[in-house]
Amino acid sequence: MLNFDFYNPTHIVFGKDRLGELDRFVPANAKVLVSYGGGSVKKYGVLDKVKASLGEREIYEFGGIEPNPKYKTLIKAVEVVRKNQINFLLAVGGGSVMDGTKFIAAAAPYEGEASNLIKSGLTQIKTALPLGTVVTLPATGSEMNNGCVISYEDGKFPLFSELIFPRFSILDPTLTYTLPQDQVANGIIDAFIHTVEQYVTFPVEGRFQDRTAEGILQTLIEVGKKTIDNPNDYDARANLVWCATMALNGLIGAGVPQDWSTHIIGHELTAMFGIDHGKTLAILQPSIWNVRKKQKHAKLLQYAERVWNITDGDEVSRIDLGISKTRGFFESLGIKTHLADYNVTADMIDDIIKALEKHGKRALSETRDLTLAVCRQILEGAM
Amino acid sequence: MLNFDFYNPTHIVFGKDRLGELDRFVPANAKVLVSYGGGSVKKYGVLDKVKASLGEREIYEFGGIEPNPKYKTLIKAVEVVRKNQINFLLAVGGGSVMDGTKFIAAAAPYEGEASNLIKSGLTQIKTALPLGTVVTLPATGSEMNNGCVISYEDGKFPLFSELIFPRFSILDPTLTYTLPQDQVANGIIDAFIHTVEQYVTFPVEGRFQDRTAEGILQTLIEVGKKTIDNPNDYDARANLVWCATMALNGLIGAGVPQDWSTHIIGHELTAMFGIDHGKTLAILQPSIWNVRKKQKHAKLLQYAERVWNITDGDEVSRIDLGISKTRGFFESLGIKTHLADYNVTADMIDDIIKALEKHGKRALSETRDLTLAVCRQILEGAM
Repeated sequence: MLNFDFYNPTHIVFGKDRLGELDRFVPANAKVLVSYGGGSVKKYGVLDKVKASLGEREIYEFGGIEPNPKYKTLIKAVEVVRKNQINFLLAVGGGSVMDGTKFIAAAAPYEGEASNLIKSGLTQIKTALPLGTVVTLPATGSEMNNGCVISYEDGKFPLFSELIFPRFSILDPTLTYTLPQDQVANGIIDAFIHTVEQYVTFPVEGRFQDRTAEGILQTLIEVGKKTIDNPNDYDARANLVWCATMALNGLIGAGVPQDWSTHIIGHELTAMFGIDHGKTLAILQPSIWNVRKKQKHAKLLQYAERVWNITDGDEVSRIDLGISKTRGFFESLGIKTHLADYNVTADMIDDIIKALEKHGKRALSETRDLTLAVCRQILEGAM
Repeated sequence: MLNFDFYNPTHIVFGKDRLGELDRFVPANAKVLVSYGGGSVKKYGVLDKVKASLGEREIYEFGGIEPNPKYKTLIKAVEVVRKNQINFLLAVGGGSVMDGTKFIAAAAPYEGEASNLIKSGLTQIKTALPLGTVVTLPATGSEMNNGCVISYEDGKFPLFSELIFPRFSILDPTLTYTLPQDQVANGIIDAFIHTVEQYVTFPVEGRFQDRTAEGILQTLIEVGKKTIDNPNDYDARANLVWCATMALNGLIGAGVPQDWSTHIIGHELTAMFGIDHGKTLAILQPSIWNVRKKQKHAKLLQYAERVWNITDGDEVSRIDLGISKTRGFFESLGIKTHLADYNVTADMIDDIIKALEKHGKRALSETRDLTLAVCRQILEGAM
């Protein structure tokens, strides 16, 4: 096992009918910015319930945080915060709203040029506004981690700071019932790939970490299709919500190698072609594993055996079956897994490679030997 | 899945050669009380390293915290803290030292009569001194939770408060290499039973929780005998240390029923006969499962299948085999599993029942139907 630090102070408030407890967690005299996305939280009444629960507190609203939240949108919220001396942020939404709100929390008290926070990370911040979240889309794990991904100019930038952990996150699975099927499917895949990025690497005797990762993957496989087909099945949805949180709160990645090449290449596909984040992962993962079978041999074999119960046949064929079952799982959720399905053609690969190069992504993966030439193979294999 | 809150702000510092980082976590101007147990931390040089790492800070020592730490011992440390205006506590040891130090942290600033904290719990405290831990014995999970068990008069009292979470815990598996085999075995069983108390109950669709619990149990089974036979095998010991922490930090018990009757009855056996805590659990658990097969049927079956890979035979025989394999595992670690092995005879059962009654333990388990009459059956079955 590798040495590690694990620290996660977010208070999770999980279950049915927990929105009313906002009053417990938001300071009584707070001036609160409630941030949200495209308006579904208005449409389905979540915003009204949030406001009712905040009672007499002074509330400001900032809607319109888009998927893959943009710096230029968020900076407008920063202005609202500064102008009104807002001192608590409440994100109501999915990963993009939570990520965007984390950036607002860091940028609002920052005295330098806010775009510096994107370019040089959040390491230079000394403080951030306190924030909480109400989760309406299970996927990114942002509700219980210290990261956010912000779109700036032509790239997506992951930023991290202990100062942007949410103070609390309310996870009421019933708030996610109204999500479109496609978004739920994207979320399932996002949580699945978060898990394998920290698990399908090389073995270091992280037995707890491996088994916890396998437990998340098995659970997502069991409940994925079920929760899409029956959105109001509480237990299926609750298991998805909790697994999505646990997949990226630092626990399963503590003390083991981490990959993240699927996400890094995927970010370019989102930035260039507007493909949903979850879908970019479903496209890339099978191809990455096909190309990286040798480096990931031991863990792919373990994955095939423990997650998919594949024990017959030689090692290579077990690994291949594990990969094809993974693709089959994504497709079973209604997600296409080839670049061609999204109108990305072979002649565009050069541009993707150039974008990766421009963003400094020349040596990816847990072994740092996934070069741009290997990226090309992966993209060709994902056609 | 049941509704739950999960909150755990302890910063874990895990791995080889981490003691030097104490300087990072203890405030530079702190007056520190270093608390420890019977002196093995002196003998093996851990205390010297801790003091070196604390540098110029003003250090006080309090040794002699015994197993099942006693109120009357701890209250002496409280006096030392008050007299010297100590403002940071550092526990160096195992569960008893950590538990005792947590109590000192709560009692030192408490203005009422300290024994009230035992009788009415820690709910009335408004503040506690900050504390950190350096773990030398993997077992209780105290390094990453908000509880402590204190011996007072003729009973053992579990106390809880969010204010006594350690700020940080340093878990360097190599610091545990010098432990006697017997203590390691006790620790393995303690972690194992912490896990089953939160897992072998009744099913509520807590899939992540179940699988994480199963992962801990499987890991303890895999590394238990190995780490006793080869104390210097880093990976085996590291897996034990991390599993012991994860077994009782709130994670696997969040959103699922919890039992704790093994611990509650076991506390009486320790208080009355001085049997090591881990050994009381090894004695009681097989008998509790034998007596409670009906109430725990579904989870015992799942346990037999997923933890012990028992899939052949009818359900009752699978459960029986799971129970006997559990007993066999404890015995393989050198721990005897019958009351008679500890010179407790059938005529003493009346007194144990009386003690349980006196301490108000009339309705135990996740279903609150484990009465004193059932306790008697369990104790008879544990002979």
